[in-house]
Amino acid sequence: MVDPVSDRTRIRRLGEKAVTERAALDTILDEGLVAHVGITDAEQPFVMPMGYARRGDQVILHGSSGSRLMRALGDGTPACVTVTILDGLVYARSAFESSMNYRSAIVLGHGQRLAGDDELDALRCLSDHLLPGRWEDIRPPSKKELAATITVAVPLVEWSVKVSTGGPEDDPADLENEPWRSIWAGHVPLRLIAEPAVTDPAVPAGTEIPAYVMTEKPR
Amino acid sequence: MVDPVSDRTRIRRLGEKAVTERAALDTILDEGLVAHVGITDAEQPFVMPMGYARRGDQVILHGSSGSRLMRALGDGTPACVTVTILDGLVYARSAFESSMNYRSAIVLGHGQRLAGDDELDALRCLSDHLLPGRWEDIRPPSKKELAATITVAVPLVEWSVKVSTGGPEDDPADLENEPWRSIWAGHVPLRLIAEPAVTDPAVPAGTEIPAYVMTEKPR
Repeated sequence: MVDPVSDRTRIRRLGEKAVTERAALDTILDEGLVAHVGITDAEQPFVMPMGYARRGDQVILHGSSGSRLMRALGDGTPACVTVTILDGLVYARSAFESSMNYRSAIVLGHGQRLAGDDELDALRCLSDHLLPGRWEDIRPPSKKELAATITVAVPLVEWSVKVSTGGPEDDPADLENEPWRSIWAGHVPLRLIAEPAVTDPAVPAGTEIPAYVMTEKPR
Repeated sequence: MVDPVSDRTRIRRLGEKAVTERAALDTILDEGLVAHVGITDAEQPFVMPMGYARRGDQVILHGSSGSRLMRALGDGTPACVTVTILDGLVYARSAFESSMNYRSAIVLGHGQRLAGDDELDALRCLSDHLLPGRWEDIRPPSKKELAATITVAVPLVEWSVKVSTGGPEDDPADLENEPWRSIWAGHVPLRLIAEPAVTDPAVPAGTEIPAYVMTEKPR
């Protein structure tokens, strides 16, 4: 078994913020919506935002077969998949300790291209993660659409999780000396919310918004 | 003058989503809070979330001088700085056209390490972007803290912007044929909001929350 926290992903600083439980990784991956996927081409790193889903011990990514990034991912080029959830702003008493609260997961690995029923299952996982409940209602991918799609799985083998929560951790001197000790300090939680759904004009009049479509609920 | 849309950043697919106006780049960079910064080390790409700020024609990044990533950035290794704002979920009539609304900016370049008054100005820009209004109240960085910090500027020379907005763009056949034409379709806007501020327990009783601290206002 491979140590999930390898030398490449071990957090050497701020060790108190590193989390090594697999459950923490799953929680972040299951809550996030957008991954930032890095690959290197001719020594230049590229970082692209992509919808993703976790499927068991894999991260599923997909995109157009016309995309150079997706072809490289499908060919197994070294990749980094990072998911960050921004949880808040931290107002410390010094510039140095001012920061943000967040949870981030970093997965290193190689994509494996999926095909056949396995690809279809992965595409359903993507839909179930990003638009829960939607798959049952919509037209599944045609053969032509599947041919235009590259779907890859990156195994959850080498990964790290970093979490920053709560209020400021100020220099003790700033808590004792004026004017810093008397200024307001604290943190502001941030949250992604869904606004009311906007119905497409081509939808027949009287069609109800399905219950699975998020409206004003937090994500 | 360098064409800001180089061969490396030109969007070859979904051309309708590419935006080449510099104002669009600035709007995204000025609204986002977290950048995903990619560098390559021994052929492995790494993508790390970082607070950032735009300062004129630069993206400012900072971090610990103990961080390998920050040292590499400060040494000018090729980097990619990506900022993505997730704007919504798109419920199309097919799996293939289901998607997300977003605005993303991708900047390719090399970091230039900052020092002296230039570094201090850049750190103030970071504070002004992430915690507007806060800099006047807090203790500025000490010499020791500056020595523990690497601050870099990545010039806004080679960049691309991609924007996806509005409702689903379905296959015309799905708008004509049952059952797909009769299902609900549309989009759900997503928005990052600030919840009420949480005051640090060490703040003297009666200290008011400054007006610049966001409370329940959208970001």
